[in-house]
Amino acid sequence: MTVTLPAEVSASQALVRPALRAAVDELPGAMRRVVSYHLGWTDEHGEPADGGGGKALRPALALLAAQAVRARPEVAVPGAVAVELVHNFSLLHDDVMDGDVERRHRPTVWRLFGTPAAILAGDSLLTLAIDVLDRSADPVATRCLTAAVQDLIAGQAADVDFETRLDVDPQECLAMAEGKTAALMRCSAEVGALLGRASPVAARLLAEFGRCLGMAFQLVDDLLGIWGSPEVTGKPVLADLRVRKKSVPVVAALTSGTEDGAALRRLYQQPDPPSEEDLTTMAQLIERSGALDWTRDQARQYVVRATTCLDRLHPPEPIHAALADLTRFVVERDR
Amino acid sequence: MTVTLPAEVSASQALVRPALRAAVDELPGAMRRVVSYHLGWTDEHGEPADGGGGKALRPALALLAAQAVRARPEVAVPGAVAVELVHNFSLLHDDVMDGDVERRHRPTVWRLFGTPAAILAGDSLLTLAIDVLDRSADPVATRCLTAAVQDLIAGQAADVDFETRLDVDPQECLAMAEGKTAALMRCSAEVGALLGRASPVAARLLAEFGRCLGMAFQLVDDLLGIWGSPEVTGKPVLADLRVRKKSVPVVAALTSGTEDGAALRRLYQQPDPPSEEDLTTMAQLIERSGALDWTRDQARQYVVRATTCLDRLHPPEPIHAALADLTRFVVERDR
Repeated sequence: MTVTLPAEVSASQALVRPALRAAVDELPGAMRRVVSYHLGWTDEHGEPADGGGGKALRPALALLAAQAVRARPEVAVPGAVAVELVHNFSLLHDDVMDGDVERRHRPTVWRLFGTPAAILAGDSLLTLAIDVLDRSADPVATRCLTAAVQDLIAGQAADVDFETRLDVDPQECLAMAEGKTAALMRCSAEVGALLGRASPVAARLLAEFGRCLGMAFQLVDDLLGIWGSPEVTGKPVLADLRVRKKSVPVVAALTSGTEDGAALRRLYQQPDPPSEEDLTTMAQLIERSGALDWTRDQARQYVVRATTCLDRLHPPEPIHAALADLTRFVVERDR
Repeated sequence: MTVTLPAEVSASQALVRPALRAAVDELPGAMRRVVSYHLGWTDEHGEPADGGGGKALRPALALLAAQAVRARPEVAVPGAVAVELVHNFSLLHDDVMDGDVERRHRPTVWRLFGTPAAILAGDSLLTLAIDVLDRSADPVATRCLTAAVQDLIAGQAADVDFETRLDVDPQECLAMAEGKTAALMRCSAEVGALLGRASPVAARLLAEFGRCLGMAFQLVDDLLGIWGSPEVTGKPVLADLRVRKKSVPVVAALTSGTEDGAALRRLYQQPDPPSEEDLTTMAQLIERSGALDWTRDQARQYVVRATTCLDRLHPPEPIHAALADLTRFVVERDR
């Protein structure tokens, strides 16, 4: 079953996309070409394409956060653009570091244009992101963004570090997800709130809502990285196991103290790349160790916390409904 | 003959270094370790080292620019820290892109800690740089920095692009140097001026001074990349020719329309890496084509323009002398 994006996400895209295009148009020519391809606006020859880019959850979150504190969504547009640019900066660099050759069913930028182009385009987007938000003249919002970027970088550094370690524990893994995913989702909501002139209490509740949504998002991502359908996710079947990623369900299984966990560890320690049969076995071991259920349960707990934040915040009814929709989408999505 | 750094550069280091350390101390642990190594503060095991880092010309330029408009050097410290951080961000990423294995007589970060560490440390420094300057609450200065970063990125993109082209002309090559080197030197002086509350005219003169100094710096760098002494520069002999770099003297020779230029072109087109004998021949061909003299003359012209800016600016006498010293150092240095 395909869960569709909530209507508010598409609505926010209509508001954010022109501003995003205007921002990208400021980039030097060589960068603009690479970034337009990465965002799905053009194909590899620079011809217009309707790739549409990613899910654009972060901009939607920024706009809804402003509306949650009764501001017009327009005021949060610089924040929405900034977080979307930061998200794409991190994708460009992560694909280089992780050696990923495909994203959104197309070759990654480093694969098509080379590693220098991907590094430089990422640098350029990061700079543009901070610049766009800085022009909104809310120094607290800019500080919030740069802090989230540092968390994002630390999270990615931990993720890379985990690759060569078998002793990662679930708490470290959750802390990595905080940095790698939750920090920017938190920032998306907080920046929207700040630009909407939220009270300190409301800004904190929205930041915590964003953080919990981000954690749930990452945990579901980890599940899709193993049990997602390749036709839908655009990634190979059992993708994360293929590269022996230390995602939360894997780490939970490895540290479960079960026979299944021990068997998984032996497969993760093999020097040769895993066979297709090994991959199926690994997924079964993770499920049988209880780690699939544990990860699902963790995601559910974050959803409960996110929902509690919303209830305490009392946003206008349609915005409350939209944020609840967004939360449901994050956990029920299949891509 | 070794030309020593002007005293003002060392003096500015004393003022800037504590602030630089405080900024780096804000970074997440994993980044701090890598950055401290890169800056020469620690060795590869994290033990204190007295590497001292680079020449720190950019911070000196920022401080002197503030003093040139009769402000105290202290006011320019956030700008000095920011430009030095941006410079080091670009070194970290350039070394990955260019595959350089040594810098300042030590292994480069990507070589020692891996490519992901170098990419992430660069990202982290770039973010920190903008953050540090942003806190000085001068939005024009922040905008000046982010614009320089975009120019820097475009310059590096052009440099990478040149690697696969033999039809680069000297004007393109000078435009590349504008982005890659002069933009940040220009910004260093301009940011110092802005933080020193310079008049618009004085800020423009100092910006142009910085730009011309940067161009002269890069042209001299290109000469040292071919004729520099390896013991002094810390780079292999004839370093730029070894990797067939399209630096200004090389491009000037290739497009000189001389027999020597044509012979150089044939050597640059060989599929195999150049032999030691080829390298010596290449350097001779560049010299005989007139490109060495042409490049020297270009550098001299930029020095004249820089000097004219200073004369029009009328800074206090000791600062005038210090900026003139800095200019002399840039063209007469041997490393």
